[in-house]
Amino acid sequence: MIFKFLKEGNICSPSGFLSSSLHCGLKKSGKADLCVLFSETPALVVGAFTSNKFCAAPVEVTKKIIERSSRVRAIVVNSGNANACTGKDGIKNAVSMTEIAAKHLGVSPWEVLVCSTGRIGVQMPMDKISNGISKACSGLSKEKGSDAAGAIMTTDLVKKECAVSFRTSDGKRITIASMTKGSGMIAPKMKTAHPHATMLSFITTDAKIDKARLWEIFDSCVSRTFNMISVDGDMSTNDSVILLANGDAGNKTIKGKSPDAGKFSEALYAVMTKMAKNIVLDGEGATKFITIEVSGAKTYSDAELCARAISNSMLCKTAWFGGDPNWGRVLAAAGYSGAQFDQSNVSMKYNDVPVITKGLPIGTSEEKLAKEVSKKELVVRINLGAGSAKCAMWTCDLSYEYVKINADYRT
Amino acid sequence: MIFKFLKEGNICSPSGFLSSSLHCGLKKSGKADLCVLFSETPALVVGAFTSNKFCAAPVEVTKKIIERSSRVRAIVVNSGNANACTGKDGIKNAVSMTEIAAKHLGVSPWEVLVCSTGRIGVQMPMDKISNGISKACSGLSKEKGSDAAGAIMTTDLVKKECAVSFRTSDGKRITIASMTKGSGMIAPKMKTAHPHATMLSFITTDAKIDKARLWEIFDSCVSRTFNMISVDGDMSTNDSVILLANGDAGNKTIKGKSPDAGKFSEALYAVMTKMAKNIVLDGEGATKFITIEVSGAKTYSDAELCARAISNSMLCKTAWFGGDPNWGRVLAAAGYSGAQFDQSNVSMKYNDVPVITKGLPIGTSEEKLAKEVSKKELVVRINLGAGSAKCAMWTCDLSYEYVKINADYRT
Repeated sequence: MIFKFLKEGNICSPSGFLSSSLHCGLKKSGKADLCVLFSETPALVVGAFTSNKFCAAPVEVTKKIIERSSRVRAIVVNSGNANACTGKDGIKNAVSMTEIAAKHLGVSPWEVLVCSTGRIGVQMPMDKISNGISKACSGLSKEKGSDAAGAIMTTDLVKKECAVSFRTSDGKRITIASMTKGSGMIAPKMKTAHPHATMLSFITTDAKIDKARLWEIFDSCVSRTFNMISVDGDMSTNDSVILLANGDAGNKTIKGKSPDAGKFSEALYAVMTKMAKNIVLDGEGATKFITIEVSGAKTYSDAELCARAISNSMLCKTAWFGGDPNWGRVLAAAGYSGAQFDQSNVSMKYNDVPVITKGLPIGTSEEKLAKEVSKKELVVRINLGAGSAKCAMWTCDLSYEYVKINADYRT
Repeated sequence: MIFKFLKEGNICSPSGFLSSSLHCGLKKSGKADLCVLFSETPALVVGAFTSNKFCAAPVEVTKKIIERSSRVRAIVVNSGNANACTGKDGIKNAVSMTEIAAKHLGVSPWEVLVCSTGRIGVQMPMDKISNGISKACSGLSKEKGSDAAGAIMTTDLVKKECAVSFRTSDGKRITIASMTKGSGMIAPKMKTAHPHATMLSFITTDAKIDKARLWEIFDSCVSRTFNMISVDGDMSTNDSVILLANGDAGNKTIKGKSPDAGKFSEALYAVMTKMAKNIVLDGEGATKFITIEVSGAKTYSDAELCARAISNSMLCKTAWFGGDPNWGRVLAAAGYSGAQFDQSNVSMKYNDVPVITKGLPIGTSEEKLAKEVSKKELVVRINLGAGSAKCAMWTCDLSYEYVKINADYRT
């Protein structure tokens, strides 16, 4: 099933979700740096978070709330300060953020989640944050969903948001929407229990769905989308994907292997795919969108090892930037990835143009290959000839601009 | 014991080694691209090689020879062509190279090793190679050791060679020398059985030493030197470290835990350390030499995971290039490395300036930290507070020049 994305779809497209955003003083640029997302009714919540040992305070607090509360009402998100490497004060501040919002929203602090992204190692200026949350809570609206997507941006150049909808078997319309940020420190590999990177993605839906089934679908979608992107191979302290499902659509509860569960799963996958790809398209300094398709692997784990090694190879990424069909670097990365295979069974293509068959170059002209590698979108297809497992990763090239952005992050 | 490197020390400094090098036509620049290293008497041989699944033909051939022959006479090395991804013809050509040299040197093909570095996926032009080997074998000399170090260079900007000597307990003078190449595709992690990266290092010594003891010492030195460097995190198809010991010094055979074994071990470590550091100093686009010292790890493996993650982090490497004391990136890399620790026990310094204590920034001024990070040599010291294991890695920064070099490797 192919989903059409809604025109002007945003985080408030599903029924019963409101948002508010503003500049509270964290970003020097004066741009919006705080938002509150609110569900008019208690929403089921599932989430996936960084497994970084330097896990940020808001991640610890939010994980604890999700463990304890099966339904929540709001998420407070700030950009400009990651509240990471901030110790006990950081935890206290993250808890305060939930309490301040709860008070203004008239809900329990156990119903408010908190996410932060931005600079590491600086305590939250709580006066600014407190004023900001207070103002944001009094300005909640159905109309400003797209502004919220701006308030969570850091080095992002473009907003990332979308929404899709479909009809259930009982005739109700279900909408799933997301707002997402992420551009650098991107190599998430999240599990519902423990994941990685600074990417934040918030997903709202008005679907009524069985919680256990929601976890399953969520987990499966995260593992095939956000967990399969890499901009720089660096995993962050703050990564979070949080989905709220408030049941406002009034459909018969989605569960088991029903057709509605299938549709919901496909729709969620479409939303996460779009958001994950948008992160890579907006990757720091990226000039190309590259898909690494590994097939013929002995196991899924081998396919993933191979795709990750190629995606994160500085030599491959710079070659792609230069439009250089240096396939030797791709094969070398496959070779050190840890995947099991025999080099004489490997084949490789750039887009649909064969490069390697049975481990050997087939003599495709340098010009023809350079033409493929120079395209804005490139698919690197490698078949290891060792089995039938496969996977795909999305990544980007490594440019001068990447170095520029990251050599003066603070200045 | 501190070893003074010999003035103008080169691969022919130990007694009984000759070399010859020339341009045979592989490098477009016209620079030397072939050399033959020869031992006047049969030399014990030990080696460590890439574990890349796309292992190059000469590596396969040389490994087989070392397994079968405990003593050899010569090594043929070419630059400009890696003889990797070249299939059965590649193997045939590598074997031919040993046979041609053997014929001209009057030894068995089982006494000749072969190493290649350069472009991947192109068959060796055997007419040029054959003529070259023939000429080189007739021009062997004691005097041209330093030219050989030039003939093995690819993207290297400087020659890498050195020699040390010491006296044994029975009054004999032993010399150990090396010539090494490597600048990009550098992240070796070699074991005597199976290692990684395009670095080549050749070590000669006139020491008389027990073979089993030599393997032990060699293995231990490789694991603390060449295996602890990373330029770009990319491991090559051709990496090789080969040591020849011809016994010409006439010393009483070094064995066991004798003082001479200790001295030999220290001298070899000094040679390998210098060569490994020189690779990093000449790393593609490198402007800084960075040492990552991890201590307080639960296990050695944890220390290494942590050091490798920091060494290969694109965000850390670009920050160092920019002189940006962005220690959040260093902690984040430690956090996703897989090493076990509690963030509240971690401390970190740039050189001798404390940055983090108990997981928290201690407020050292940005200016003071920036001053340290702007130095040409930087030591990043991180204590995980989880045990007593430690390790050190040598790496470099990621500059515009790195991108430039690797975005037009072929053009």
